[in-house]
Amino acid sequence: MPFDNTPGEEMHSWMRDLFPIMRSLTGEGVRQTVAYLQELMPDLQLRQVASGSSVLDWTVPDEWTFREAYLETEDGQRIVDAAVNRLHVLGYSEPVDAWFSRNELEPYLHSLPAMPDAIPYVTSYYKRRWGFCLPDTVRRALPDTRYHARIDTELKPGVLNYADLVIPGDSDREIMISTYICHPQMANNELSGPVVATALARWVASLPNRRHTFRFVFVPETIGAITYLSRHIDHLKEKVVAGFVMTCCGDERSWSFMPSRKGGTLADRAALHVLNAHGLDVKTYSFLERGSDERQYCAPGVDMPFVSVMRSKYGEYPEYHTSADDLELATPAGLAGTFAVMQDVIRLIEANRYYRMTTLGEPQLGKRGLYRSLSTLDVDTSLRHTLNIVAYADGSLDLIDLSDKIGAPATLITEVAARLIETDAMVASDGPSG
Amino acid sequence: MPFDNTPGEEMHSWMRDLFPIMRSLTGEGVRQTVAYLQELMPDLQLRQVASGSSVLDWTVPDEWTFREAYLETEDGQRIVDAAVNRLHVLGYSEPVDAWFSRNELEPYLHSLPAMPDAIPYVTSYYKRRWGFCLPDTVRRALPDTRYHARIDTELKPGVLNYADLVIPGDSDREIMISTYICHPQMANNELSGPVVATALARWVASLPNRRHTFRFVFVPETIGAITYLSRHIDHLKEKVVAGFVMTCCGDERSWSFMPSRKGGTLADRAALHVLNAHGLDVKTYSFLERGSDERQYCAPGVDMPFVSVMRSKYGEYPEYHTSADDLELATPAGLAGTFAVMQDVIRLIEANRYYRMTTLGEPQLGKRGLYRSLSTLDVDTSLRHTLNIVAYADGSLDLIDLSDKIGAPATLITEVAARLIETDAMVASDGPSG
Amino acid sequence: MPFDNTPGEEMHSWMRDLFPIMRSLTGEGVRQTVAYLQELMPDLQLRQVASGSSVLDWTVPDEWTFREAYLETEDGQRIVDAAVNRLHVLGYSEPVDAWFSRNELEPYLHSLPAMPDAIPYVTSYYKRRWGFCLPDTVRRALPDTRYHARIDTELKPGVLNYADLVIPGDSDREIMISTYICHPQMANNELSGPVVATALARWVASLPNRRHTFRFVFVPETIGAITYLSRHIDHLKEKVVAGFVMTCCGDERSWSFMPSRKGGTLADRAALHVLNAHGLDVKTYSFLERGSDERQYCAPGVDMPFVSVMRSKYGEYPEYHTSADDLELATPAGLAGTFAVMQDVIRLIEANRYYRMTTLGEPQLGKRGLYRSLSTLDVDTSLRHTLNIVAYADGSLDLIDLSDKIGAPATLITEVAARLIETDAMVASDGPSG
Repeated sequence: MPFDNTPGEEMHSWMRDLFPIMRSLTGEGVRQTVAYLQELMPDLQLRQVASGSSVLDWTVPDEWTFREAYLETEDGQRIVDAAVNRLHVLGYSEPVDAWFSRNELEPYLHSLPAMPDAIPYVTSYYKRRWGFCLPDTVRRALPDTRYHARIDTELKPGVLNYADLVIPGDSDREIMISTYICHPQMANNELSGPVVATALARWVASLPNRRHTFRFVFVPETIGAITYLSRHIDHLKEKVVAGFVMTCCGDERSWSFMPSRKGGTLADRAALHVLNAHGLDVKTYSFLERGSDERQYCAPGVDMPFVSVMRSKYGEYPEYHTSADDLELATPAGLAGTFAVMQDVIRLIEANRYYRMTTLGEPQLGKRGLYRSLSTLDVDTSLRHTLNIVAYADGSLDLIDLSDKIGAPATLITEVAARLIETDAMVASDGPSG
Repeated sequence: MPFDNTPGEEMHSWMRDLFPIMRSLTGEGVRQTVAYLQELMPDLQLRQVASGSSVLDWTVPDEWTFREAYLETEDGQRIVDAAVNRLHVLGYSEPVDAWFSRNELEPYLHSLPAMPDAIPYVTSYYKRRWGFCLPDTVRRALPDTRYHARIDTELKPGVLNYADLVIPGDSDREIMISTYICHPQMANNELSGPVVATALARWVASLPNRRHTFRFVFVPETIGAITYLSRHIDHLKEKVVAGFVMTCCGDERSWSFMPSRKGGTLADRAALHVLNAHGLDVKTYSFLERGSDERQYCAPGVDMPFVSVMRSKYGEYPEYHTSADDLELATPAGLAGTFAVMQDVIRLIEANRYYRMTTLGEPQLGKRGLYRSLSTLDVDTSLRHTLNIVAYADGSLDLIDLSDKIGAPATLITEVAARLIETDAMVASDGPSG
Repeated sequence: MPFDNTPGEEMHSWMRDLFPIMRSLTGEGVRQTVAYLQELMPDLQLRQVASGSSVLDWTVPDEWTFREAYLETEDGQRIVDAAVNRLHVLGYSEPVDAWFSRNELEPYLHSLPAMPDAIPYVTSYYKRRWGFCLPDTVRRALPDTRYHARIDTELKPGVLNYADLVIPGDSDREIMISTYICHPQMANNELSGPVVATALARWVASLPNRRHTFRFVFVPETIGAITYLSRHIDHLKEKVVAGFVMTCCGDERSWSFMPSRKGGTLADRAALHVLNAHGLDVKTYSFLERGSDERQYCAPGVDMPFVSVMRSKYGEYPEYHTSADDLELATPAGLAGTFAVMQDVIRLIEANRYYRMTTLGEPQLGKRGLYRSLSTLDVDTSLRHTLNIVAYADGSLDLIDLSDKIGAPATLITEVAARLIETDAMVASDGPSG
């Protein structure tokens, strides 16, 4: 596990820049976020779809414009102010500008008795409401006075934005990475996803060659993924061989894995293989515990091969969906670890082929430079692996299966296979053969 | 497990009425039993097949007429008398009327040293014999005197009787319940089966509608099931989707399950699901330990989907096949428990469908009244179940699979599915789809 | 496990005769070995293929002629002499006849510090070298003097020999037994294989009838198996239903099993069934731990159903590939045990058929003499087995599966099946049916 933490510092700096933007399902915050990412990925395309559009079973909601939101006492003291923390305003609040008694205010306040010092993150996208979120300690200490509740927002037809970047490869078969950009001012559950996805996109773009085409998608969660599917589903179902939702990948406390609905896809196999190969202590969840855009990508009839490699999973750490999910919780080292694992997952899928011997019986390894010329009792691990590659390369196993079966690192198998292919003892193909 | 015991009292009263009838493979006892059941199920049909008829690999035996059987000492004392307990005469005894010394009598006596106070149940259907069954304590105390053995029976061509009742439903696909009526004066291993089957038939007939057709079959064990198969096998193999042998379902000491030969049929899945859902401590036996008419229904080439939900299984409780298997052993509460479980099994099969989402991605639950409008951290179990139904309804899982997969009660799934179907987000079908 | 040890004495005597022959991949030693075996199996055929011939991916090496090999000090003392132990000369040594200082000699000496009193077995078939093998204790005590190294060998074009014996049966489907004859003066890992194979061939030839044809093959390991495959692969792939590599089957310390590459072949199932039926404590290895000619027979594209039943497996006992693998290590009782197990494996495959009931429902066993006429509580194991045979003989299970499924000995099943077949209740076939 000695990951290189350098890329983590850069990712964390992006995260700090993006942190205060007032992101939501729609609105200026999403566009500001995409604009920032476009500086890092010039080919990233901003897209939009009009409010009211039908997207699969859904309708794109009105666009939300946020200007300010605060709660003031009669004596002019601001109790909560969204300028201080974006979470103070209930997401998608309709506007309000009125005076309330302490009691009248009660239904509009949200706090978490179990985490009394944290501001909870609450939204109401599809039913019009307004509200303020605040620490439970603050709420309990509110004096019995009158309050000026002011939320200067607008909800009216506009657009929903998202962005994507396609990096072509030798084949039109795609590796897709999807992440979301709709949560304000939270780190592990929001910004860790976009910054790791961005770092991966920049690294992939820098590679001298790519076997697969890569697709990076930045969408508001749920409605954005549904919109993206509504626009591209036939293409994606045909082309995507492995997909990854990047979410909750920034802290250092644990490793988590969310499989695809039925498991066993190339994405599942590659991710689990790499996590195991790194010897990481990974908690594999059931798809019943899913919670991000795999809900759409793995839905019946969509059935794409999507998984998530995470650190502390949404819903499983106390700071989730609160102001405590901050820039201290997600760290450079946490981000760098996920980045390194995902690089290896991508390398593995890029290298993945089905191998089949063309010789019958064992090939003569000696004449191929793959055998010691002197047989003794000494154990030669690399020879053992070579003999096992030769014994199991029957065209039914891909690189991942073969590595799992014989317990040899995928990189060693790739090297030995290259030598066997050069010397006409083996062929590689994209699918099972023989 | 708080089962309603009321139906158990009624079933137990039927059992008490039927207890003393001298049932055997054939003869008046079978007809008296059917006549009693016809009062409870007026549409129950008495059938007959002539002795000597070929039924599959078997030949229907001669009919047995029983009048009386006793063993008297020289001084006129009746040691055993079938008027006192029907088990005292070896079943299908040929007639005898002669005097024997104590020693000469020995080969004709049957007792159980391991249960010295119980009368064993012994029969000889296919080889002509006669004999008396008695407690081992009585046998050991028999004085060395002469004995008058009198068995007034007749074995001659006649008929073998059985009965069936078909209750039509919307579909011609059948749920079949088979039980046996050939054991005299035993409760758990005999009468519990017919009385629970009768209660189920009366309940099924009272339902306002039925999706399946129901078939209730009352046969002498083995030869009766073979006879029934010989008459209906093509129909049954085509139509029966789930079958149940009702046997040993009257005591309160345990729950037992006999799977079908290969397991995994609708009958297996439905029964195990209900037993698990009730949280019952069930012992699942191997088909190697079968012993009732699943021997015929699940035989190679017959291959019907038959299982048994039992309380204390035949051969597994000490009173089995003795006079101790009596009206105290089988209780109202024991019968009522089995009845309640079998009602739920039938309800589950009646409700069982394959569900498939017609929307792509998650449907918008809010507009269907299936979503809270306010998203907070509170866990909403019914929403979780709804989202899981939506995530797994891909047309490959039926209600039972879906319930097992997501851990939601079948009744909740049925309700949510109804709402999704109404709102054009889901379709249901009798078989897998998609 | 009370095996008859008598055949072990005879096998051990053959082993003693064959022990000192200077076997190698090629040369006179192989021919002497075959000549000895021909006295025991007159129909065994000696074959040859010329050096330089292409065999699959390999080329047949030059033939090695050995005359003598020793190492002498200046004062004429023979430190090592291949006349004393064949292992003293590195296998396939090229000739040498020169004087060396103690230091100059060092690269040509092989010993085992971990087994300081044993001579290691070392070969260099495909790279020309010469060398001496000796106990590490002897090597360490070598005085600092000059040494005369003399190895009188020749490496030049000749032939590679092997031998085979085909014993015809009713069917042209074959059971094949392959063993190797290329190691000098070692017992468990070499001669145990040929002598058990010989004993099996003599026993098979003596049988009054055989359902299968039998093929016994004696080859130099690896290159010999490859040569044999190169000559017969199409025939063998089509005809061989079960194959066994006989190796390391002479000691008494353990039982080992090497499965085929994918497992589950008739050879795997039969061998495991017999080992289990004898209640032996068997260690089943992974195919990853293979090491003999299953490397060729189970290679991708060859895919023959080969397994090995062994005692102490190659590489897993300390004496392996040293002079300590001697005639004390392999014992008459050890050989006899393997012989007895392999006889049972062969008997089982000879008897193996798929059974299917032709009656529907249970057949009437009474009229077939397969049922007690009196039903009591006594457990009748043979009846239970009979009823289970009847319940599971659906044409999908062969004798081995059926025996595993119902827990009845294969011999009992064979007897009952014969009776059911005679009485038209069952059919047997070579493959699955129904």
